[in-house]
Amino acid sequence: MRVEIWSDIACPWCYVGKARFEKALAAFPHRDEIEVVHRSFELDPGRPKGDTGPVVPMIASKYGISEEQAQAAEDNLGVQAAAEGLAYRTRGRDHGSTFDMHRLLHHAKQYGRQGELIQLMYEANFAEERSVFDDTERLVEIAAAAGLDADEARAVLADPDAYAAEVRADEQEAARLGATGVPFFVLDRQYGISGAQPAEVFAQALDQAWGERSPLRLLDDGPADACGPDGCAVPQPS
Amino acid sequence: MRVEIWSDIACPWCYVGKARFEKALAAFPHRDEIEVVHRSFELDPGRPKGDTGPVVPMIASKYGISEEQAQAAEDNLGVQAAAEGLAYRTRGRDHGSTFDMHRLLHHAKQYGRQGELIQLMYEANFAEERSVFDDTERLVEIAAAAGLDADEARAVLADPDAYAAEVRADEQEAARLGATGVPFFVLDRQYGISGAQPAEVFAQALDQAWGERSPLRLLDDGPADACGPDGCAVPQPS
Repeated sequence: MRVEIWSDIACPWCYVGKARFEKALAAFPHRDEIEVVHRSFELDPGRPKGDTGPVVPMIASKYGISEEQAQAAEDNLGVQAAAEGLAYRTRGRDHGSTFDMHRLLHHAKQYGRQGELIQLMYEANFAEERSVFDDTERLVEIAAAAGLDADEARAVLADPDAYAAEVRADEQEAARLGATGVPFFVLDRQYGISGAQPAEVFAQALDQAWGERSPLRLLDDGPADACGPDGCAVPQPS
Repeated sequence: MRVEIWSDIACPWCYVGKARFEKALAAFPHRDEIEVVHRSFELDPGRPKGDTGPVVPMIASKYGISEEQAQAAEDNLGVQAAAEGLAYRTRGRDHGSTFDMHRLLHHAKQYGRQGELIQLMYEANFAEERSVFDDTERLVEIAAAAGLDADEARAVLADPDAYAAEVRADEQEAARLGATGVPFFVLDRQYGISGAQPAEVFAQALDQAWGERSPLRLLDDGPADACGPDGCAVPQPS
C-alpha cells in the first residue's frame, strides 16, 4: 500500500503531523508493506528565493495580530511539537522560499533517501539556529547527512530547472485531489486525510484502507500480446 | 486520471501496444486530463551490461525453434508494427541489458521528457541500424534529441547508481500489482490491462475508468491542524 504525504518544510503542522503518522505506522502490523512517498506543496509558491524574514512578524502581519499574540501562537506550536517528542525553536526562526528544498527532496527520491532528508530538513528548520533559507551550503550539509552525495546535491541546487517540473507536478496533483492545505495524506489514492490528525486517526485510516484495498481489476480477458521473462507472444502469420 | 505503463525498450509488444494505446488516447474526449507515466520493467533484469547479441538466434534458443522460424516470428512482428504505422527492422537487431535506458527514462521524468525519450528509444531499437546497447554516446544523442541536456545524460549513464533505486522500485511495484509481463497498463491504480490489446480495448478501458473514477474519500471529519496559503491553524493554549 502506498501513502503519499504532501507537505511543506515551512509548515509546522507537517512536522508535527509526520510524527503522529509515524507513531501510527510504527504500530501498524503491515508496516513493512507500506511505501511512503513525500510530495511537494509550497505554502507560498510564488515566493521568490531570497525573500526571507523572521516568522513571528510574518504571522502577526498575516493574521492582523500583535507580535506578542503571534509569539504566543509559536509557543503553543512548540507545546504541540514537544508532546510528540519534537524539538521546536519558538524564537528567531526564519521563513522563506522552500522551492529548492522540494527540488532536493525529489533528487533524494531516486536514491531512496527522501525520508531521511525530509526529517533532517524539518529538524534544521524548526529546531536549529542556522537558517535553512538562502544558504545552499547548509542544504548541501543536510543532504550529505541524509546519505546523498554533496557534489550532486550542490549541482541540483545550482540548477533552478533541476526537478522543478516534478515539484510543479506534485502541486498540480494536490490541487486535482482537492488538497487546499498540508499536511495531506493520501492512502492508495483512495482515502485522504487532511491535517495533523491524532495518531489514532492515522491508525484507523491505515486499518480501514488496508482492509478495503482491492486488487487491480483487469479490463480485458482475451489473450494478450505481451512479453515476459520467458519471451514474447509470437504472432501467427495472417 | 493517471495511466501508468510498465514496459521494456527491448519488448516489441510494448512498442506496438504503446501505439495502440495512443490511438485510443488521441480519440478520448478527456485526453488533456490524462497523465501518462512510464514505468520500468526489464524482461531480463539479471542481464549484465555488455551481454549483447543478435535477436534472432536468441529467440531460436529461447523457444527451441530454428533460426528460420525465429526470423518468421520477427517478420510477423514487423507486420503488426507496420499495421500501426511503425517502422520495424526485422533483420540484424540486437538484444541486451536495458537497465541504463530505464535509468535515463527516470532522469527524463524530472524534466517532463519521458514520453519523448521512450518513443525515440523504441524507434532507435526497433527501426534503426545502430545498436542502442553498449553505446553510451548513442543514448546521449537520443537523450539530446528528446530535449535533455547531453552532459547531464552522460553523467547519469556514467553513474550506475543514478536512478537505479527508481528502476528497482518500479519493478517491485509491478510484481505487487500482479504484472508478469509487459506492456502492462494501470489506470488510476484501479484497472489493469495486460498486453498490446487493440486500440478499441484501450478506448473502452479509458471510458470505463473515467466513468467510475471516484474522488478521494476523506477519512476524518474533525477540524484539521493544517497550514494553507492563508496561514496555519493556531493551537489554543491548553
